[in-house]
Amino acid sequence: MNLRPALFGLLTLLATATTHGAEFNWKYATVVPPNFPVFGTGANRLAKAIETMSQGRISVKVYGAGELVNAFEVFDAVSRGTVEMGQGAPYFWKGKIPAAQLLATTPFGMTAEESNAWFLYGGGMELWREAYAPFGIYPVLGGNTGPQMGGWFNKEINSLADLQGLKIRVPGLGGEVYSRAGATTVNLPGSEIFPALQAGTIDATDWIAPYNDLAFGLNKAARYYYWPGWHEPGGTIEVLFNQEALDGLPDDLREIVVRAAEASGHEVLADFTANNHRALQVLLADDKVELKQFPPQVIEKFRELTSEVIQELIDSDPLAARIHQSQTEFFDQVTAWQRISTQKLMDARMPANDQPAEAKSEPIDNK
Amino acid sequence: MNLRPALFGLLTLLATATTHGAEFNWKYATVVPPNFPVFGTGANRLAKAIETMSQGRISVKVYGAGELVNAFEVFDAVSRGTVEMGQGAPYFWKGKIPAAQLLATTPFGMTAEESNAWFLYGGGMELWREAYAPFGIYPVLGGNTGPQMGGWFNKEINSLADLQGLKIRVPGLGGEVYSRAGATTVNLPGSEIFPALQAGTIDATDWIAPYNDLAFGLNKAARYYYWPGWHEPGGTIEVLFNQEALDGLPDDLREIVVRAAEASGHEVLADFTANNHRALQVLLADDKVELKQFPPQVIEKFRELTSEVIQELIDSDPLAARIHQSQTEFFDQVTAWQRISTQKLMDARMPANDQPAEAKSEPIDNK
Repeated sequence: MNLRPALFGLLTLLATATTHGAEFNWKYATVVPPNFPVFGTGANRLAKAIETMSQGRISVKVYGAGELVNAFEVFDAVSRGTVEMGQGAPYFWKGKIPAAQLLATTPFGMTAEESNAWFLYGGGMELWREAYAPFGIYPVLGGNTGPQMGGWFNKEINSLADLQGLKIRVPGLGGEVYSRAGATTVNLPGSEIFPALQAGTIDATDWIAPYNDLAFGLNKAARYYYWPGWHEPGGTIEVLFNQEALDGLPDDLREIVVRAAEASGHEVLADFTANNHRALQVLLADDKVELKQFPPQVIEKFRELTSEVIQELIDSDPLAARIHQSQTEFFDQVTAWQRISTQKLMDARMPANDQPAEAKSEPIDNK
Repeated sequence: MNLRPALFGLLTLLATATTHGAEFNWKYATVVPPNFPVFGTGANRLAKAIETMSQGRISVKVYGAGELVNAFEVFDAVSRGTVEMGQGAPYFWKGKIPAAQLLATTPFGMTAEESNAWFLYGGGMELWREAYAPFGIYPVLGGNTGPQMGGWFNKEINSLADLQGLKIRVPGLGGEVYSRAGATTVNLPGSEIFPALQAGTIDATDWIAPYNDLAFGLNKAARYYYWPGWHEPGGTIEVLFNQEALDGLPDDLREIVVRAAEASGHEVLADFTANNHRALQVLLADDKVELKQFPPQVIEKFRELTSEVIQELIDSDPLAARIHQSQTEFFDQVTAWQRISTQKLMDARMPANDQPAEAKSEPIDNK
């Protein structure tokens, strides 16, 4: 006698019965306001996917920044098990883990595509897990922002002199570079940027790129929108799991939450790529916004200072040194490949005679 | 009395009992030899993930090309329900769905990152599902190859004259362009390329990029390795589900197979990006391989012919016209954003004075 159909029927009945109350009630703390584009909406989708895949055996409640813990407290909350899941960017935790800055993004470094490749197939995940293990946290690659913008400025940057005394919000290694260039750097979570910029507490800020910058209305608080985003060519987004909570799941549910987070990460970059350009058009339609390119000599100085800042970090932190070595070996090879592939293809599809007139020389300042 | 813990224990017991035989036994037909890098290994990982997430309720058996059906028969097999899942590239099915060529990749068109964004957030998935629905197939974005190479040639391409009478294997719109340029184009599944090239049945072939080209040993059958891969800036990989089989799953298992395929797709691009550059170094170490760049006038001709080929396709096929319009609108906007982000960042990180001497001018021909 084949018992399987009968067992299946019984299982289904029981499963239905148990979905009225989940076996695991998880909290997921994010670093943005509720329903904020990509970070918030993506977290909602991830929570829903986990519930559907687990047939309701796990329920995931998403919290915006400040609802349960503040943005910069997410790491601690996951570490302590106050929440089972958290969201972040590795450089937020540089006070605890200096090497995390290299996991977030490196100025003039890897793009999203290259960074994902390093994490998944270049040894990056192993180093990341090693870095977070002492805190009882298991990180999953939850996507990448793609290339960011240089940021919003209330004064023009025409030379290195304009950086002196500039009060700017920039996290991670980019912030260190600004400090060394003579600026005063602060780090603020997303929701505090707009009021600080509007009040003049800061003169300038990075955030992400057009889609999210528009969502915070940064164009209403600053005039000049600078490119390129030299300091964040591809910002890592992380989904953090409390290790004990993860270990407490049966195998199938553990695979479900990790795989769902990975799949959600895939959507993140596509969401940014698709919506940044739409938002850029909206921002450029705002008469008070001027799109500006950093002058070459300023970029060159940023490059020099980036080398200094990284050198200092790896001299003082053995884990950072190992991460940097792994990244550098990967980067050197992948850029050789990119020169004959992505970079050449992007050039080949857009020769000068196919570009709109205003973009024929150096693209594009809108004013 | 709280029945949940007791029910959970019973459920676990029953679930364990049923994993001895799966409730759903699925077949997954791929288009490459068993365990072939990325396509084969990725399919194996996907099958295993589905089994783990479903606690063995679905078993997925992966078949290499020719083991159950040949590579070019996968679409039909999924359509008929001979297999529940299949793998492919949309241009393989152009005989049935001419518009599928635009879903695969467009010469001088979108990169992997842009293409993923169009599919997931630009209306692409909806058009793709519409295209495959008449065949009872539900497609999922199973990743992207990233930028491909121009391919392997047994004669040099110094001018348009060298294309006349060239026998070349290239699928999709790229193949149409070669035909129009005077070449004789054939389409062959991967496993038939090497013998055809070695026997001189064809003079040249594209395949994918260094990682997979090395796996087929194409460097042993041709001398010149051309770049850039103008005809495939980002090749779509698909996971195909038989719609009835998908509909026959309970909600949780349906979400599991679809999400697992999406997560697997995320790994695909990272795998290519990480391993292409490693394989390129191996190929360049082969004395018999010469890396060559297509001459500018040949690329320009390919560009002209691409426009003609697309125009003809959209004039003759209303679905292709709708897909093309959606892609074009997206492409025009996303390239404006890329010019000030990815493209500029790739330039900024690699100024001439940081490049190895041999790459300072036009990178890189190894001979």
